[in-house]
Amino acid sequence: MFYFVIDILGTIAFAISGVMVAMDKRLDMFGVFIIAFVTAVGGGTLRDVLIGSTPVVWLTETVYLFTIIGSVLLAILFRNQLKYVRRSLFLFDTIGIGLYTMVGIQKGIAFGLAPIMCIGLGTITASFGGVIRDILCNEIPVIFRKEVYATACIVGGLGYFLLEKLPVNDAYPYVGGIIIVIGIRLLAVRFKIALPSIYR
Amino acid sequence: MFYFVIDILGTIAFAISGVMVAMDKRLDMFGVFIIAFVTAVGGGTLRDVLIGSTPVVWLTETVYLFTIIGSVLLAILFRNQLKYVRRSLFLFDTIGIGLYTMVGIQKGIAFGLAPIMCIGLGTITASFGGVIRDILCNEIPVIFRKEVYATACIVGGLGYFLLEKLPVNDAYPYVGGIIIVIGIRLLAVRFKIALPSIYR
Amino acid sequence: MFYFVIDILGTIAFAISGVMVAMDKRLDMFGVFIIAFVTAVGGGTLRDVLIGSTPVVWLTETVYLFTIIGSVLLAILFRNQLKYVRRSLFLFDTIGIGLYTMVGIQKGIAFGLAPIMCIGLGTITASFGGVIRDILCNEIPVIFRKEVYATACIVGGLGYFLLEKLPVNDAYPYVGGIIIVIGIRLLAVRFKIALPSIYR
Repeated sequence: MFYFVIDILGTIAFAISGVMVAMDKRLDMFGVFIIAFVTAVGGGTLRDVLIGSTPVVWLTETVYLFTIIGSVLLAILFRNQLKYVRRSLFLFDTIGIGLYTMVGIQKGIAFGLAPIMCIGLGTITASFGGVIRDILCNEIPVIFRKEVYATACIVGGLGYFLLEKLPVNDAYPYVGGIIIVIGIRLLAVRFKIALPSIYR
Repeated sequence: MFYFVIDILGTIAFAISGVMVAMDKRLDMFGVFIIAFVTAVGGGTLRDVLIGSTPVVWLTETVYLFTIIGSVLLAILFRNQLKYVRRSLFLFDTIGIGLYTMVGIQKGIAFGLAPIMCIGLGTITASFGGVIRDILCNEIPVIFRKEVYATACIVGGLGYFLLEKLPVNDAYPYVGGIIIVIGIRLLAVRFKIALPSIYR
Repeated sequence: MFYFVIDILGTIAFAISGVMVAMDKRLDMFGVFIIAFVTAVGGGTLRDVLIGSTPVVWLTETVYLFTIIGSVLLAILFRNQLKYVRRSLFLFDTIGIGLYTMVGIQKGIAFGLAPIMCIGLGTITASFGGVIRDILCNEIPVIFRKEVYATACIVGGLGYFLLEKLPVNDAYPYVGGIIIVIGIRLLAVRFKIALPSIYR
């Protein structure tokens, strides 16, 4: 139940981030909806397609579609007020990234994949919705250029597998991984930390 | 047999629309063929991948590949005459959209998905070939910006599920759905109807 | 073993070509890695997803991921020296294309597909990593505009199926196909041969 609430909050935050990018591009209502939809479910969809877990989740769980439709309608209606909830949205988004990383890792484990591949799937789950959003909007994906975003997922995933080796209850590594992702992301944004540049 | 003829006409129309976009971008012969191919089969391919119906249709039914190769060769040879058949192409394209919407819906039903997801799959089948075409040509997809295209698919899909509740022969809802899609698309283009704008 | 060495050399060459394109776009380290990764495994991934051979190869064979991580680190470290190995990289890349074409064809045969579809899958395996790389970098794919690249794969694939009809050992058509792909590509680049233009 607790995870379900986070999942839905994350879906809402991702969908609204899609609405904002799509409206910047002045897409029509259908375009805005599609961008919101792929931002919210694109990462999980790519993960499911790569491991062969089909039909993909959102085709069988209608709650995601209805959540996204509702989020898009509200975001369009209150588009001039979105700036007042920016901080909440950023928080939901960050919590969502943490949760999605762990969801992807669990799915990789269920399919018997190596830990490093599970971490990759977790990172894909959390970050490729935004990649597909940017591609559809004809932009180079923002997470390829700046923002410590995928890095937070990767470190959180490593943390999960380390914690999992300890003799503790199953829930600890899971929650610990989420907290690491959230912590790194918040610290990076707060202190404007980026990956070391590879250019002079 | 009747549906097969529509299917092939739709494939031709979609492929030629791909040729025209690709030639605008001055792609070489291989590029033109690939764009034509993804325009024609991209929507159905994405649908099949999402529900896990693999190998995707065109890998096992060679008729699509040969139809597209033939269409591309004819379209390149007679590229200066394409404008004279523009009206026919638009008609084939519109009929194709109607049929593909229903094909996608049927496949969703066969996989036991909820009606709203079937409508989504129908819309993806009919419209995502054009989306992939535009992405590969480095454009924001045209159906995200203008044109009542996906909307026609969605309303046609709703019409199908409403008609299907009536005590009538199975063919009626199917043909009825196709006619609704075609009707909305023709009216929208004829009277230049677009989705209401969400921008001031 | 021999094929395995070629496979790894091809992976390295593809990954480094990804690094070079990504650094031209001034992506950050994570972006550079992702572009290198999709360039190296994107074609095989698309092939596996289309035929339904999941989980895709690189999820279960960790050697590809580690090869790519190593290649990216070396390429970034020695980025100013890359020009000195350009000729070797081009050769590995070309040998890789030849091998990947045959790998894709074999997989198509294993799934019982028609020869023309196997050739298509071979071409996808060899060339769509570069297509996805260019899309992610917001460019129209280079193989749609110039370079006899896919054409070499297609002709090599045809050669394979012709040789395979002869009463010879199984290895001959395989190696013959690879040599045809490599030969055409080398000749085309050496003599600057392109597809005949379809524009005035």
